[in-house]
Amino acid sequence: MKPIVAAAPEARRRIPSLDSASDPFSFVTDELQLVEENLLRAIRSREQTLTDIAGHLICGGGKRVRPMVTLLAFLAFGGKRTQDIVDIATAIELIHTATLLHDDIIDRADTRRGKESAYRKFGLKNTLVAGDFLFIKAFEFAGKFDETVVEWTADACALLTEGETLQGYFNRNRAVTVDDYVEIAKRKTASLFETGAKVGAYLAGANSASVEETHRYGLNMGIAFQMVDDILDVVGQIELLGKPTGMDLRDGNPSLPIILALKAEQTAVCEAFQTAQPTEALVTAALNAIKSGPIIQEAKSISRGYAEEALKSIRKFPPSLYRNGLKTLVQLIIDRDF
Amino acid sequence: MKPIVAAAPEARRRIPSLDSASDPFSFVTDELQLVEENLLRAIRSREQTLTDIAGHLICGGGKRVRPMVTLLAFLAFGGKRTQDIVDIATAIELIHTATLLHDDIIDRADTRRGKESAYRKFGLKNTLVAGDFLFIKAFEFAGKFDETVVEWTADACALLTEGETLQGYFNRNRAVTVDDYVEIAKRKTASLFETGAKVGAYLAGANSASVEETHRYGLNMGIAFQMVDDILDVVGQIELLGKPTGMDLRDGNPSLPIILALKAEQTAVCEAFQTAQPTEALVTAALNAIKSGPIIQEAKSISRGYAEEALKSIRKFPPSLYRNGLKTLVQLIIDRDF
Repeated sequence: MKPIVAAAPEARRRIPSLDSASDPFSFVTDELQLVEENLLRAIRSREQTLTDIAGHLICGGGKRVRPMVTLLAFLAFGGKRTQDIVDIATAIELIHTATLLHDDIIDRADTRRGKESAYRKFGLKNTLVAGDFLFIKAFEFAGKFDETVVEWTADACALLTEGETLQGYFNRNRAVTVDDYVEIAKRKTASLFETGAKVGAYLAGANSASVEETHRYGLNMGIAFQMVDDILDVVGQIELLGKPTGMDLRDGNPSLPIILALKAEQTAVCEAFQTAQPTEALVTAALNAIKSGPIIQEAKSISRGYAEEALKSIRKFPPSLYRNGLKTLVQLIIDRDF
Repeated sequence: MKPIVAAAPEARRRIPSLDSASDPFSFVTDELQLVEENLLRAIRSREQTLTDIAGHLICGGGKRVRPMVTLLAFLAFGGKRTQDIVDIATAIELIHTATLLHDDIIDRADTRRGKESAYRKFGLKNTLVAGDFLFIKAFEFAGKFDETVVEWTADACALLTEGETLQGYFNRNRAVTVDDYVEIAKRKTASLFETGAKVGAYLAGANSASVEETHRYGLNMGIAFQMVDDILDVVGQIELLGKPTGMDLRDGNPSLPIILALKAEQTAVCEAFQTAQPTEALVTAALNAIKSGPIIQEAKSISRGYAEEALKSIRKFPPSLYRNGLKTLVQLIIDRDF
């Protein structure tokens, strides 16, 4: 995916030509710029430390996929009042960032997006509080909306925390199945995508069947997104990922390739996954075992299944360039290498 | 303060007789019962672990002072729609509980309210996520209200996090002054009191001058509340406090008595406060030094000054039994021994 290009804030939204129809970013350049401005405003605090920590991540190269899904769903259903959707897209990105800060504490992560993690740089206490700060700012943006939007957003967040807890339950736990995994991915990753998409359609005034369909779109593309993330943790390149591969094995997180390898009884993977603080040699052996067999192809095929489901939902949306954008986005997510 | 007595949920609110006018709890028994029911509903999660952790603290003997202030301020200004104020009082208690869970992680606390802390019992990860879960639930309750209430509540939370950060800056830092301390107490403790009181008056339909006055009431009583907390950390009884005394010295937190002792150059206090992990002998020596001099009297006198300010605000409220309740509450806070 290409980086977000800043547009003059006062610029009117350009309707992209058909030539650029393959680039979903170009459809919402101006709105994403407004999201960026909102984010920068949101992280301003009386305490410079909080601004610094939040800025470390907010300004650290996030792909803004969740705001983009939200904006595109809104526009695909004919939404007009851009400011509304920009605010909720901001809230969703703030929630995502808050969970990243807290995840780094939980995983004791050294790096995030190619830089030292906030947890390493600023310590547990400040990072924890900065995560809370971002949650609060998110709800300041989301709280302006009607009860339905507030409830959906809060539900998505509750699901996130529940997904985190469920994942913890299956940490280094060989009993984990693909079904368990999908349940975790639904809660932990898909929840913000499905909520963003659904809120987008709802605020655009779509009928309830369409809102339900955007929900399904977000759900399936979110699951696919997590699966690709997991695959990249095995086969990705460190320079593109911004972090080493094999993190799921080191942390004992049940990723899709790991679960498939456990099912195939790959000895090195079973051992690395179940060992607290596995050696680097063990992690490398496990990664090689996964890469040498059919596991990655199998995982890719499963993720494509979810992507296909997302595309099926899109076909039910009214035809528009924004619908095309949502479609291309699914393709980009499936094909991404970072 | 006496424990909350459960009332039948369907019971109509009783107007207390003048005989019970000295007990602010009796004025809002039914509403506090509704808050309790809300709290129990709020902590229900698909993940039992989250419910367990939240319940560990929610059902663990909180005094519900913040909801009480909110309810009394509402009733003192003639508020009628009780369900509204019960929901925001619930939100405020949930926010308070979320910060307690996160504080226990930050302080690596062993105990809280006389029991093992959630952090010790359930570990860092689950406790962190449970704190997030409660923040989210709080905003589900608060998000139903108009933009003003949402903004005030979010501001209070932002202040809380900023107070935590500022306190961290002065951790074991001898440069801290009483003014710094008051700034921390304003943000960390008074913010939820002042917001609860202000929202109460606002939702009751009070005019802006009255809303401002309830804000001042909450601010000053909140600062007094924190000061008494600090004093009890020196002179309190472990059985009543539910935790050992001297925690501020152990954690390097700049409490009011510590700051006054630093100013008076009490050697043992200077040493204990500035030492990471001071020995128990050093902590005991420092506590004895504080207790033997005029420090506690001085701290009590400062806290009474803030309580007096809170009482001045109350005098401007329209006369009612609820106003009496708010007044008594200040007295109870100043006189409390736990």
